Amino acid sequence: MKISIIKIGGNVIDFPDKLDHFLSLFEEVPGQKVLVHGGGVLATRLSERLGITPNMVEGRRITDQETLEVVTMVYAGLVNKQIVAKLQSHHINAMGLSGADGNLIRAIKRPVGKIDYGYVGDVQDVNAPLLEILLEKNCVPVVPAITHDGSGQLLNTNADTIAAEIGIALAEKHEVSIFYCFDKKGVLKDISDEDSFIPEINFSSYEKLKEENVIHSGMIPKLDNAFKAISKGILQVWLGRADQVHEAIKEEKVGTFIRF
Amino acid sequence: MKISIIKIGGNVIDFPDKLDHFLSLFEEVPGQKVLVHGGGVLATRLSERLGITPNMVEGRRITDQETLEVVTMVYAGLVNKQIVAKLQSHHINAMGLSGADGNLIRAIKRPVGKIDYGYVGDVQDVNAPLLEILLEKNCVPVVPAITHDGSGQLLNTNADTIAAEIGIALAEKHEVSIFYCFDKKGVLKDISDEDSFIPEINFSSYEKLKEENVIHSGMIPKLDNAFKAISKGILQVWLGRADQVHEAIKEEKVGTFIRF
Repeated sequence: MKISIIKIGGNVIDFPDKLDHFLSLFEEVPGQKVLVHGGGVLATRLSERLGITPNMVEGRRITDQETLEVVTMVYAGLVNKQIVAKLQSHHINAMGLSGADGNLIRAIKRPVGKIDYGYVGDVQDVNAPLLEILLEKNCVPVVPAITHDGSGQLLNTNADTIAAEIGIALAEKHEVSIFYCFDKKGVLKDISDEDSFIPEINFSSYEKLKEENVIHSGMIPKLDNAFKAISKGILQVWLGRADQVHEAIKEEKVGTFIRF
Repeated sequence: MKISIIKIGGNVIDFPDKLDHFLSLFEEVPGQKVLVHGGGVLATRLSERLGITPNMVEGRRITDQETLEVVTMVYAGLVNKQIVAKLQSHHINAMGLSGADGNLIRAIKRPVGKIDYGYVGDVQDVNAPLLEILLEKNCVPVVPAITHDGSGQLLNTNADTIAAEIGIALAEKHEVSIFYCFDKKGVLKDISDEDSFIPEINFSSYEKLKEENVIHSGMIPKLDNAFKAISKGILQVWLGRADQVHEAIKEEKVGTFIRF
């Protein structure tokens, strides 16, 4: 199968109009697809309303018990079910599945090192056969950033990582592309010019772009992750705006493709 | 297939120890099973913490937009995923599915009559083939009291009704029993004596028990619903305590069975 894994984050989810627009375009995405999402600013807002003080250590947010409950409610509950209900209204047979559901994604609580991140999970195992059964039936799994450890504990897990790990697990038998939607039209040569996106980056051009300081700071971990996915069998990783993903999947010249 | 639909409510969900105990016993329940749940007092508590004033009309709680968001978060998010993760730790392949997921339960927003109940759904259609596929694979669907209307709107739906409607839909092809867990050992002859439960009620004994005023007030709508399910092909409806349901399923003499 040709499978597209599409990840959306706060820059889509936080704006009802943008989310609706994206979900209506999602119908046009051909082939088998998986949607991965976080919860954007809604979780922060709910925490604030509940008077939960963000637990920050060295600039990193810690997932304590209360925060885990909030992200489970917002990601796996509100956002996930709203997306699923809207996709269903577009005649897409969406099914929301956290990592616990059908043992889709088993993770391990991040070991306590210099920082104790709390209830944060690092992915250990993806149930690819379950995804295959659903995709074969034209079902669209909608996966929030919540996993479990197999011993009854839910865990907060980075949505970018979930998209990559699902992709890698499916890439053993299928042609998998990952589409990361973010707030830019792609990897930009000039951050002030939205149209300066680089259409394709491969291993050798990546090294050159880093040397020339065209790609720097925040983009480096993002692209390192993309190349890690490529090295593990993913066909291509795309970076661009959510309102262009349906064009990108048709191989139209939008956004940035990361290829071998 | 022999299928057991088990419904739990606040009297189990609201007490972590009771819920854990119930979920550990759930492993012993033989055969194919579906778990239906509400959200108990957690939704009320979250509403209170968020400062949402309960919208009551003629003693009935109205599901306004904010309340719908709260119940979606609590039922389909927190409670559902905690139950699923715990069942997974007991080696039960649980999968949490709201009515929107895989178009499992389509409902219609209750028409506005004397009272506008808000975002409350009356069940129209249950996707029995989806449940059959999952049950054949030894998966245990865990269904919160949230449905959708097929046009993108989530709806709050009574968990007892969901259990009955799922049962009726599956009864066309399968031998279905419904187990309603509540706070009593069964239908009691003497409300002050927990051991006075009536082991079996059928149509004719029901009429007699009502005439004799043994069964009255709150039990009548509950039993009327049970007999409605029986008349639509359900084999038996059981009423009793959650910690006895595994015995009831083995046809041991606990609780009250409603049969034709």
